[in-house]
Amino acid sequence: MARRAVVTGGAGFIGSHVAEDLLNDGWEVVLLDNFRTGRREFIQENEKSSSLKVYSIDLLTHDKLSDLFSDCQRTYHLAANADVRFGPSQPERDLEQNTIVTHRVLEASRISGVKEFIFSSTGSVYGDSKIIPTPEDAPFPIQTSLYGASKLAGEGLVQAYSEAFGIKSWIFRFVSILGPRYSHGHVYDFYKQLRVNPNELMVLGNGSQKKSYLHVKDCVEAMKCALKESTSGVQIFNLGTEEYCEVKDSIGWICDELRLSPKVNYGSGNQGWIGDNPFIFLETEKIQRLGWKPRITIEEGVRSTIRYLIENQWLFAPRNS
Amino acid sequence: MARRAVVTGGAGFIGSHVAEDLLNDGWEVVLLDNFRTGRREFIQENEKSSSLKVYSIDLLTHDKLSDLFSDCQRTYHLAANADVRFGPSQPERDLEQNTIVTHRVLEASRISGVKEFIFSSTGSVYGDSKIIPTPEDAPFPIQTSLYGASKLAGEGLVQAYSEAFGIKSWIFRFVSILGPRYSHGHVYDFYKQLRVNPNELMVLGNGSQKKSYLHVKDCVEAMKCALKESTSGVQIFNLGTEEYCEVKDSIGWICDELRLSPKVNYGSGNQGWIGDNPFIFLETEKIQRLGWKPRITIEEGVRSTIRYLIENQWLFAPRNS
Repeated sequence: MARRAVVTGGAGFIGSHVAEDLLNDGWEVVLLDNFRTGRREFIQENEKSSSLKVYSIDLLTHDKLSDLFSDCQRTYHLAANADVRFGPSQPERDLEQNTIVTHRVLEASRISGVKEFIFSSTGSVYGDSKIIPTPEDAPFPIQTSLYGASKLAGEGLVQAYSEAFGIKSWIFRFVSILGPRYSHGHVYDFYKQLRVNPNELMVLGNGSQKKSYLHVKDCVEAMKCALKESTSGVQIFNLGTEEYCEVKDSIGWICDELRLSPKVNYGSGNQGWIGDNPFIFLETEKIQRLGWKPRITIEEGVRSTIRYLIENQWLFAPRNS
Repeated sequence: MARRAVVTGGAGFIGSHVAEDLLNDGWEVVLLDNFRTGRREFIQENEKSSSLKVYSIDLLTHDKLSDLFSDCQRTYHLAANADVRFGPSQPERDLEQNTIVTHRVLEASRISGVKEFIFSSTGSVYGDSKIIPTPEDAPFPIQTSLYGASKLAGEGLVQAYSEAFGIKSWIFRFVSILGPRYSHGHVYDFYKQLRVNPNELMVLGNGSQKKSYLHVKDCVEAMKCALKESTSGVQIFNLGTEEYCEVKDSIGWICDELRLSPKVNYGSGNQGWIGDNPFIFLETEKIQRLGWKPRITIEEGVRSTIRYLIENQWLFAPRNS
């Protein structure tokens, strides 16, 4: 019998890649998404497959959620509010989408007897770490964003469920992810501005913010690599590359791909917004010791993302919801 | 004009001592409690004071919570589900009482312009720390209980609110607290058993679990000491003593105070229950550098708690709720 996995946020940027990869590996996939940032277009190639079941539901409110987890061996909980920037203007959103929903997905998994749980966390949980690159066992951090706090809370719940109910768990702390289906974040925002006005670009912060990015294909490979290790309890892995760039490097690559030379208007300071980490750069020795290595450079990640966006103009169309 | 503070859980064990101390120092106190574990009897001496306003409300559901925080300069958020043991049988409770309620109290504080926030956390957030005594900047911990996870989540929210909204915050990670008005935990449980059957005592775990306790008077003094320091941002302090005991030491003191020699039946293993930390022992150098020192030993704390329980038999009467 085929193994079966739930993928929450399975129509999202990272989730759709994970779902696709599981289907390719012969898994049955129960895909849950509220299609707010997830897109039908991301999964349409696989929707014909009898191994894929898609449910358009709200994880925060859906009744009898655990019914959807029946006969599943594994949960990939990738649904989240992934936008770190709007925390202070919507203080409930991160709590609801990243903490309470994680609790509901854990409960549904527990009730249905799921024994493996994968959680997508973030390098933002390290706050403004003094140790860079930041290892998984960095000093107990102080949260600087509601997003980071809500993900840290999710991590804690996953860990406590592992201990209390014998669920194996893998927690991945991502840097920002780039690549096909990328549809929020700075590369998207910059391209969106330049589509409207190719002569001018407004940048939050002074452009010297250092950022680390990982390509979504490398990200999916890293998760697979970690999952191959048979473990018990909780495994935590940073996922990122060994290089970083500044926002202005990225702007250079974007403009080069677009053959544009806009006037770039920088803001001030090294924070793009309140709670923005000036620099998230993760130590990835732990995952690399398992044999994984990123294959795509940040520059190629940014460039290929722009090419993807150019080819997928529908992403910029107004949405009904 | 008198300064005014909200004390949530103000009719509880620690909260009632904090409220009393604030009134003695000339503060006006808005005391919020759902009176589930809080008791009218703990605050009755102060209820005559015109400086005390008591509201019997549910922080999880109360509408327009922020109205109660008007004109307050400071919030002491001490309301919590403080019992670590029942997490796995009631997986929602810690999340609701310790995480979601903390978010609601933060929101109410923010909306009302409260600028100082005090949060009672726990040494349980360190999980099963490898570093003992455990300092505030111990390596990024892994949660081993739903209680610890829910408090860690609360901490993260407090920290993110500090960063986003300029609220000064103090987070106190307590060991277990003993003293007058203590009404849950092992001293209470053992005495309750011995009241019914003075000849036999059942103990969870093998009795060698090491535990650190702090007397509630020392705890309140430590918080006052930390609050005197004018700071900005987030301050985190462990609160505990420099000594520890084993559960069987404590049993010895309890039996001695009661003049009893029961047959003690130990369980097995060094965990009293799933998620029990074998040993919580906190490094308290940071708070001691500010001039605070605990005055009451663990032995005297346990003995005085038993004497308090003997004098307050009403604590063992069945309750209506």
